Amino acid sequence: MSGRPAITDHPVHPIIAERWSARAIDPDRPVEREKVLSMLEAARWAPSCFGDQPWRYLVWDRFEDSEAWEQAAANLAEGNQAWARPSPILILAVAATTFSRNGKPNRWGQYDTGAATENLHLQGVELGLVVHQMGGFDPDAARSLFGIPDDFEPMAMIAVGYPGQVADLPEGYQDSESAPRQRKPLAELAFRGSWDTPLT
Amino acid sequence: MSGRPAITDHPVHPIIAERWSARAIDPDRPVEREKVLSMLEAARWAPSCFGDQPWRYLVWDRFEDSEAWEQAAANLAEGNQAWARPSPILILAVAATTFSRNGKPNRWGQYDTGAATENLHLQGVELGLVVHQMGGFDPDAARSLFGIPDDFEPMAMIAVGYPGQVADLPEGYQDSESAPRQRKPLAELAFRGSWDTPLT
Repeated sequence: MSGRPAITDHPVHPIIAERWSARAIDPDRPVEREKVLSMLEAARWAPSCFGDQPWRYLVWDRFEDSEAWEQAAANLAEGNQAWARPSPILILAVAATTFSRNGKPNRWGQYDTGAATENLHLQGVELGLVVHQMGGFDPDAARSLFGIPDDFEPMAMIAVGYPGQVADLPEGYQDSESAPRQRKPLAELAFRGSWDTPLT
Repeated sequence: MSGRPAITDHPVHPIIAERWSARAIDPDRPVEREKVLSMLEAARWAPSCFGDQPWRYLVWDRFEDSEAWEQAAANLAEGNQAWARPSPILILAVAATTFSRNGKPNRWGQYDTGAATENLHLQGVELGLVVHQMGGFDPDAARSLFGIPDDFEPMAMIAVGYPGQVADLPEGYQDSESAPRQRKPLAELAFRGSWDTPLT
């Protein structure tokens, strides 16, 4: 696990408290296919509206398909490439915009895909991996490069690998690996019956 | 836990395998506030784009604010009211459409809120509760009734309570409490480098 659990105000399961988004990844250690499959399997069992399962994942493994992996890495924003290039695995989370059962708009496609990817993220951290989701990539280029259909929306690129050395990160990214983890207070996030009435 | 774990093709953490969306809820047993707070705390520690934390939760407790709870229950689609009315707790998950840091559109508001709610869901099941998300409710009515601002989008109503008797559910909802749990095969959900190329 991460050794950097959230300091929570109320008890939560360790798998949730210990999930975070590290950046230091070992460039030389591949990720076993079985671990990648367990992450995807965790995503598979998420809940979804009408059980439609609107999530899809594209997976690149630098140790298996280095050219294809390079296409995916080059699709990342420069700021993300700066730290994420050591990742042996990149995964793109894609959300359906329509229901597979009837082709009608699916208002929950992105919401449900976020849920599935949280399962994937938790499972990865549980297996001793660094998992870090990124919004900084080019979704239009990804769509044409990787053949993503019009009724699916690329949502997040995900860097996956074994933990590496913080000292090997670019300087601007080193502090965040040990800075205190912070969140808004619950009073700003949870309300009692109507907006802005704090629950507690 | 649920006693109805997913039959997974690859190993996943028990908290993920044992999460499901039951419907039979005990109408007479309140949910301790501390458990509700642990669920919300689990949501709080989810990842989000730029750490913006776009999720908000409205909470109703039938044993504390029965009139307010009734407003929330009446907002559910009829098919959901049929089984969800025993719930002591209803929670509405709401997603920001803009970043709180700069007011610009947040393309990940719903995705991140889905992730946070998956944490909430997992934590609830871990605490021995039934948790069931519903898309069937009236988001426009919810917006005006509960004072939800224009730059937030109501996403899911969530029924929470202790497990009840399956025999007390309306007849059409009883079978699903014990039917085999199913998902699409991983080959339809996870691809190797480009769309529709199965990973395995």
